[in-house]
Formats: sequence, C-alpha cells, structure tokens
Amino acid sequence: MTQLKNDTFLRALMRQPTDYTPVWMMRQAGRYLPEYRESRKNAGSFMQLCTSPDFATEVTLQPLDRYPLIDAAILFSDILTVPDAMGLGLYFAEGEGPKFKRTLCEEDVIRNLAVPDMTSLQYVFDAVSQIRRALNGRVPLIGFSGSPWTLATYMVEGKGGTDFLTVKRMAYARPDLLHRILDITATTVTAYLNAQIAAGAQAVMIFDSWGGALAHNAYREFSLQYMEKILAGLKRENEGRIVPRIVFTKGGGLWLEAQAEIGADALGLDWTVDIGEARKRVGDKVALQGNLDPAILLSTPEAIEKEVATILASYGKGNGHVFNLGHGITQWTHPDNAAAMLEAVRKHSVQYHR
Amino acid sequence: MTQLKNDTFLRALMRQPTDYTPVWMMRQAGRYLPEYRESRKNAGSFMQLCTSPDFATEVTLQPLDRYPLIDAAILFSDILTVPDAMGLGLYFAEGEGPKFKRTLCEEDVIRNLAVPDMTSLQYVFDAVSQIRRALNGRVPLIGFSGSPWTLATYMVEGKGGTDFLTVKRMAYARPDLLHRILDITATTVTAYLNAQIAAGAQAVMIFDSWGGALAHNAYREFSLQYMEKILAGLKRENEGRIVPRIVFTKGGGLWLEAQAEIGADALGLDWTVDIGEARKRVGDKVALQGNLDPAILLSTPEAIEKEVATILASYGKGNGHVFNLGHGITQWTHPDNAAAMLEAVRKHSVQYHR
Repeated sequence: MTQLKNDTFLRALMRQPTDYTPVWMMRQAGRYLPEYRESRKNAGSFMQLCTSPDFATEVTLQPLDRYPLIDAAILFSDILTVPDAMGLGLYFAEGEGPKFKRTLCEEDVIRNLAVPDMTSLQYVFDAVSQIRRALNGRVPLIGFSGSPWTLATYMVEGKGGTDFLTVKRMAYARPDLLHRILDITATTVTAYLNAQIAAGAQAVMIFDSWGGALAHNAYREFSLQYMEKILAGLKRENEGRIVPRIVFTKGGGLWLEAQAEIGADALGLDWTVDIGEARKRVGDKVALQGNLDPAILLSTPEAIEKEVATILASYGKGNGHVFNLGHGITQWTHPDNAAAMLEAVRKHSVQYHR
Repeated sequence: MTQLKNDTFLRALMRQPTDYTPVWMMRQAGRYLPEYRESRKNAGSFMQLCTSPDFATEVTLQPLDRYPLIDAAILFSDILTVPDAMGLGLYFAEGEGPKFKRTLCEEDVIRNLAVPDMTSLQYVFDAVSQIRRALNGRVPLIGFSGSPWTLATYMVEGKGGTDFLTVKRMAYARPDLLHRILDITATTVTAYLNAQIAAGAQAVMIFDSWGGALAHNAYREFSLQYMEKILAGLKRENEGRIVPRIVFTKGGGLWLEAQAEIGADALGLDWTVDIGEARKRVGDKVALQGNLDPAILLSTPEAIEKEVATILASYGKGNGHVFNLGHGITQWTHPDNAAAMLEAVRKHSVQYHR
C-alpha cells in the first residue's frame, strides 16, 4: 500500500501530537457541491451513486479536490445498505427520503432474520478499494456503518426521522423481539465494518443518528451495548497500523461518560455540548470529534470564523481533537462558507499544538 | 376564591412536604381521550376548542373527571395564540400542523413588530376564569406560554418541527433582528402570563419545546436569557399564595445547571435525563417535573409500572418531585394505560414521603 502523506487525522484520533487540528465534514461529498449534483444527475439516482464504485469514488474525492485543507475522506455510501442487504428492500421515493418495502413487525419474520452474506455488499467493499487507489495516500479513508439501534428504527418503522413510537412500543412491550433484531444487526455490522477494513478503510465510524431519541436507560440497553459488541469484534490493526474507531450518538451528549467506556478511540459530538466540558468529562479515555452547528455555515465567513475559534479555544491546548460539524453539512451551504470554516480551523488551531 | 382541596402539586413545586408524589400529564386533555375527540368534533376545529372558553373548560376538565388521581389541571390552549395575537395569522392546514400566513423575514416587518394589546387574547383569560370556577378548588390550574425562542422559530420559519435553518441563519448572520423578535416576544409573554395569573392561574409553565435544537452557547443567548427576563417580570403571588413557575426545555438536559439559575421554581425534564442525576446536579435550587417517555404508555400496564417505579426510586426520598411525562401524551395511548401510570405513581411514591 502507498505511504500515507497526511496522517494528521489518524494521529488526532489516537490522541497523538499533531501540528494543527485536523478537519473533515460529515456529508462532505454532498448536494451543496455543484460537482456532486452533476455526478448525481449523471448517475441517475442516489442509489446508483452508492452502488457504483466508479461514481462512489468520483464523489468521495470531490471535496478533497476542491478543499486542500480537508484531512480525511469518507466512503460515499448510505447507512441503509445494511438493512437492504438484510432483505428489507430499500427504495427512495422522490422527495420523501429512504423507505423500506418490508418492515419488521411480525414475530416469525423477526425470528427468521439472518446475517446476510457479505457478497451482497461487495459493491461497497469494491468502492473502498477503488477509493483507496484513487486517494493514493493523500489522506486516510473512513469507513462507516449505522448503529444497530439506528438501523432498527428504519427496519421497524419503515422510514427515518419519525416519532419512533412503533420501535419504542416494541422496546417496552416486546424487548425480546427488538433484542433479536439488534443482535442480528450488530453481527452484520461487525462483518460489514471488518470487510471495509480489509478492503482498505483506515478508520471506522458508527453513526448512531437516532440514539438520542431513547430514554437514558433504554439507550444503554438498546443502543450502547450493541455498539460495544461491534467494537469488540472489529479488527484492531490493518496494514501495520491501528484502525481507530469513532462512535457518534447524535443527541447523546448527556451520556458521554458511558460512551467513553465501550472501546471507541473517539466520540462524535453534536453542537449541544460545550467541547471543553466534554473533554473534562471523558478525560484521556477518548479523542473528541466535532462540533460546529452546520447551520452556522449558512451565515457569513466572519460569523463562521468566530464560532470556529470559540470551539478550538474551548477544547484548548493539546491533542485529541478532530474538528467537524455536529451533523451533516446542509445542501443550502455555499461552498465558499465551507472553505471559510476549513481555513479558520487551520488558522486558529496551530497555536494549540505548539 | 374557593379553598383549594388538593394543593399537593403546588407544595411539591415549592419543595414542601407532601404525602405522595403529585402527577399530571402534558397534553392530558387530548386526542387519546374519546371524550376529547367528541368535543373537538362538536367544536368543529382545534382553534374553536382553544378560542371558546366553554369548550376550553369542557376539555380541560375531562382528564380530571376520568382520572381522580391527577393533581393539576392545565389550561387548554395552544402556544401559538401569542404569535397569532402578534399579527402573524395562525391557521391549521388539515393534517399538517399549525402554520402562519405571514413570517418574519423582512427587516422592516421585524422593526415594526409590537407587543399586542392583551385584549386580543381575552378569550384565553376568560377560559382561565371559567376553568377556575368549574374546578371549584379540586386541584390547581396551570397557565402556560411558549418560550420566546420557541415562538420565534414558528414566526420565522412559518411552521414548527423543521430543521430550524432559517431562524438559525438569522441567529448567526443577523442576531440583531432575532434579538428584536425575542425581546418583543418576551415582553408579550410576560404580560400574557401575568394576565393568566390575574385571571386565576395558580402556577405557570414556559414550554421551550425547541430550545434543544440550539447550540449550547446559542441556547443561553437566544432562549434562556429571555425566559429569565419573563420570570423576573411575573407576579410572584396571587390570592395570598406564591405562583410557582416551571421552565421546560425539551432536549435541554445538558443545561440544567444554567436553567436552575434563572428564577424558576421547577424544571421540566424529558426522558433522556436520569432524574436522580438531575437532582444531584440542581441541588435544592429547584423542584423537578418529569420524566417518563410517553412511548412507554403504548406498551403494557406491567412495563409502565416498572418504569414509573424506576423513576420514583431514582429521584428517591424527599420533596420536590412532580411526576409527569417527558413530553405530551401521544394520541395512540389507550386511556387505561394512562390510568396504569397514575395508579403506579401513587402506589410507589408514598414510601418516599414518609
């Protein structure tokens, strides 16, 4: 494998010294970029972008080509590839977001749920390999998956971002059924991430996008313990180097202490948490990634620079911070405002690494 | 005024001794009750229910008539009566939730925004008086308002539950305009709650339903300081008794320490917080109200009783807890499950008050 030219991101995740605070943006290959919209038009659909290694490689590299200050690439894919491979029939209704043809509600269907053969996800691993070749060592490549709880919300509700009443009813009335789903999903995600690592992913991230909807004790029972199980089953090293793992529960800022105990190297933070307070709470157990409100990128370069400086100052001196947004960049962001953020991170972070 | 027969709720809010933990349910007069659905049909629309003191009185009392274990009534109304009185033109599109005809985006419109005459909200104060007469001292009556930030999200976005990108863009790009809106709204809410108190509200609650969408520092600047301003302007006593104030920021569990400093007597908690930990964090500064996940009421009486007992045990011995849901009861709740919750609170709470 090619020598990595910029390993700042990987070093920060392991809380090793770096010259500045590395940065990437969740959903950095996305609709705010005109070149992405062009690729999507050429591909014909979002699913075509995800399932074609050529297109996935093309869009993964677009933000890196535009912004030389980005320190990591992230595999272009969707968290719902996993339930799709589990047989639920993913589709995208125009203007409605992802949906599933089948949902998990009947007991016998849930009992028959099985870990899918990873060959059904080969297109993802092919994309990882192809992106690694295209990167040619510029920056590390992040692989990822949704958390079992987050994937289960889609599989039980049939869609995302709902009130979660169906899946929560199952959690309280039939916890045995939900645990069955989560258990199979955790085993699947473990195999999925290990295959991404084998194909060349140099760090992995688990997105627990809907963990914050759970009650505090239900979070531990239905989300956190399954992420812990996944981390315990992941290959720790590849190509002679540790593969750092990031866990991000959006809306989970109250539970950082518990998250810091499950074997992650870094925790993602959304914008509701003061990153300096978060650092005090987790101590030297994990690095932290975050946490600018993506809405700020809709304002002005001056306002962006001010908020970036505030976050960097709150984290303070020393290692273990990866700058990022607190959630995905919105499609309404002007690309120049993303550049303003990246420049502000570099400009203001060097002083904290002397 | 008639002597109050059951003041357990008011005493708990002031952290005074009680024989058991009092309980009420957010949105207790609501669609899960067949008698409410009948009233709404008779009224013709949700707005008719809100604007007619007769209908508002009828539905406010329905949960009390059905459930003798409820310790407080809450005015039946909507948080959007205030922006409606401010001239934004509230309407309810069938199946779509509340919307406004006009939104606040133009600078001159915002500069011309004014505190409305309270006579435009007289129907609310008439409802308060009429409900007090109908209650005849059974339990105390809670008045309420939305927080300035929460009302501003509707006034700027035109509707609720969005991604808040428009109002957040204003917060970061033109904070002067948003502060102008929040300032006028806070003055309006102060007058609105004082008029409810004068009409007979025996406690008041500020619902900051969307405060949790803000970044931690933006929450202080755009939501918390305006709630503090309101509390400072509220009449403290009426009818020879203190009028307790409850502040509830949904999704604000990370910021309880700051909330405890603004002059509230009690803080509302959603289900993401462990109430025992919350109690340690706020000390003896405030009482706590919450925090069962309303989704649990969709399960079984056994599961409900177990979770109720867990919350009561977490709070532990002593005063200062008002049991409630962590958010409004859902329309899919079977009325018997609400009864199971109320009975469990009484059954399991007495031991903590000996």
